[in-house]
Amino acid sequence: MERRPRVAAVLPAGGCGERLGGCTPKQYCAVLGRPLISLTLEAFGRVGWISDIVVVVAAESVDLMKTIVRKYGHKRVTLVEGGVTRHRSIFNGLRVFIEGHSLGPAVQTPEVVIIHDAVRPFVEEDILLQVTQSARQHGAAGAVRPLVSTVIASSSDGCLDHSLERAKHRASEMPQAFLFDVIYKAYLQCTQYDLDFGTECLHLALAYSQTKAKLLEAPPDVWKVTYKRDLYAAESIVKERISNHLCIITNMKEEAIQIGFLLHENLKPHIKHVKAISSSMCKTLHDLQSIFQGQCYNFVCINVKESDVEESRKVTDLLQTANIGSYPSVVVSVHLAFPEQSSNGMQKLTGIRELAKEAQQSDILVYGLLINFSKDESQLQGRAHEASAIIAALIKDRTPALAGQLMLA
Amino acid sequence: MERRPRVAAVLPAGGCGERLGGCTPKQYCAVLGRPLISLTLEAFGRVGWISDIVVVVAAESVDLMKTIVRKYGHKRVTLVEGGVTRHRSIFNGLRVFIEGHSLGPAVQTPEVVIIHDAVRPFVEEDILLQVTQSARQHGAAGAVRPLVSTVIASSSDGCLDHSLERAKHRASEMPQAFLFDVIYKAYLQCTQYDLDFGTECLHLALAYSQTKAKLLEAPPDVWKVTYKRDLYAAESIVKERISNHLCIITNMKEEAIQIGFLLHENLKPHIKHVKAISSSMCKTLHDLQSIFQGQCYNFVCINVKESDVEESRKVTDLLQTANIGSYPSVVVSVHLAFPEQSSNGMQKLTGIRELAKEAQQSDILVYGLLINFSKDESQLQGRAHEASAIIAALIKDRTPALAGQLMLA
Repeated sequence: MERRPRVAAVLPAGGCGERLGGCTPKQYCAVLGRPLISLTLEAFGRVGWISDIVVVVAAESVDLMKTIVRKYGHKRVTLVEGGVTRHRSIFNGLRVFIEGHSLGPAVQTPEVVIIHDAVRPFVEEDILLQVTQSARQHGAAGAVRPLVSTVIASSSDGCLDHSLERAKHRASEMPQAFLFDVIYKAYLQCTQYDLDFGTECLHLALAYSQTKAKLLEAPPDVWKVTYKRDLYAAESIVKERISNHLCIITNMKEEAIQIGFLLHENLKPHIKHVKAISSSMCKTLHDLQSIFQGQCYNFVCINVKESDVEESRKVTDLLQTANIGSYPSVVVSVHLAFPEQSSNGMQKLTGIRELAKEAQQSDILVYGLLINFSKDESQLQGRAHEASAIIAALIKDRTPALAGQLMLA
Repeated sequence: MERRPRVAAVLPAGGCGERLGGCTPKQYCAVLGRPLISLTLEAFGRVGWISDIVVVVAAESVDLMKTIVRKYGHKRVTLVEGGVTRHRSIFNGLRVFIEGHSLGPAVQTPEVVIIHDAVRPFVEEDILLQVTQSARQHGAAGAVRPLVSTVIASSSDGCLDHSLERAKHRASEMPQAFLFDVIYKAYLQCTQYDLDFGTECLHLALAYSQTKAKLLEAPPDVWKVTYKRDLYAAESIVKERISNHLCIITNMKEEAIQIGFLLHENLKPHIKHVKAISSSMCKTLHDLQSIFQGQCYNFVCINVKESDVEESRKVTDLLQTANIGSYPSVVVSVHLAFPEQSSNGMQKLTGIRELAKEAQQSDILVYGLLINFSKDESQLQGRAHEASAIIAALIKDRTPALAGQLMLA
């Protein structure tokens, strides 16, 4: 953008999610333990050029929402009480920029306002930027997607009247963006009927501000969580995202380095980004985070000494202190069993169980993995191969019930 | 239905699934290892009153499809080569009932033909019956769903022209059903343009057979797997479905019965249908299947004797013999460790690993679970509680990489 305009966002989140079939409004449904709306706020939080995020919530959910904002550290968020319909809620959100509100400090009127649903958590900065730029140029802009099904009009007797040509129609999605004056004026002038039964902001801009919105083909990520199956999909997407990065932490003992190297090689087919570092290079949380220039949720710690979880404890301590935990982290505590030593699996297991129990309170899942060390290169390679499949599965599943267990490769 | 009409189905499955972003056409994408289209064929296979299922596949996929039909034992299926567009494929499917085809025996012309997508695997008998009955009455009928997003029409400059009133429009889904003569005549008479660019069978029936289709509000299950996220959702739905039933098999030893009873109680919050039976009552596969009057994919076997997997082996043998495996089965091999005996965890583990390795070839996942037995009632209760959470997680995740591992409660 040539000059940075002031951009704000309004997120209507007052809906009751009846299509989901449950009692919890869908924006508060948990995805890996975290409310859906918190994912959406995180997506907006990553976009530095959006100055204010006005979230419109039902009166009875204001306290819940305050807790969510505090717990996940969402910034630039202003809460506003919703109306009884979607349009009334959005209008309440917009009014805040003019009239202020009772729930917090005043927010400055933006040049452009983005409207987005709380239940479209996978929106990316790129499409937010596109709608914003288009809104500056055209007054209004909205994300659209091709129709998945043909749309048909029914006659009053419940029969087919006609079907619409798929190529000429689009599904109107979110985000949408407007020059603030365009959409605010439209809401001021629209009818009570519009406020009660309308659904489409682009329509209001057209009808009451004579502004033809620019339609932008959006990526599939902008999809709206509507049904229970969408929550399943959201959970799988989040799991996949946070399983992309893995850090292997090893000390400088010969066997640890050897195993670390083998795991590094064998984990590559399972996990996109794998890095290995020496434990001496990760004394602070900053060290851990700098590995991937961002949040990493997965760690493999190689412990060499018999019956001890020293390296793993160091990492969980670092993670606990920082409380980065937007999602559960996984620490796989790898131990080596040497044939010449009488292996004491049970003793190791006790240490891991204790560590896991403690860490789980901070949403860190610790799993143990015992690798039978072998001097035979190809045997060790086989075990590293098996160990990597186990590690990848533990990271992918992220199952709390299995924390503290000791796997064997 | 008063008189049973002859009903057949045509499943167009020639598409290339470009919206999924992968190279595999989506009907062949794996859901828990099983091609999506096989789920759809299973759904139709359960409906006894559909006499023929004509699957229209691309020429290059005929062999693959034959393998799928054989592997999963689909009955009443006729394969037909597809055309270059959806409508041409459906037409090819319909022609088989009149002209016969080269790939197999003739099929009899039905009174009603159901058209359904191969990539809508969760269709239920109820909606199939509804469209069939409506088709007999009205000549044509189709499943519809409310619109998730507002539909808009764009002008030639890529701007909003107008938005459609959501309440008056529906998404046209599948299944649809037609009197055979109605839809066949429509395909015979429609234009080349229709065959190349049309998408909607209901439209053809209206335009060329003057038949107004009855629209039936369908449950959300009829949804079409379109994007990658839909595959995630499908996988979660299948996992949930096959995790609903659990059979606990125990012998008549006192401790086994006690643990079996505790697990039964503690598993109920996790798994909808839990039954416990004595191992003497399950000597044949028929015994196992009769427990739930249908397929059960989850078993807990309680082994009392030290370092032996006898009960678990019996069950995996039964499952292996029968090869019911449409999906991977889970067998949790529960073992009791008694404080007065020197527990030999490693030896038990060896037995479980061997059994698991063998069983995995038949798609049976064996996991070990060691419960420290205690005479103290409340301590044992606590362990049964933990054990149940582990069992539920193993069943829910169904992770091949963890087969053969020994968990501890």
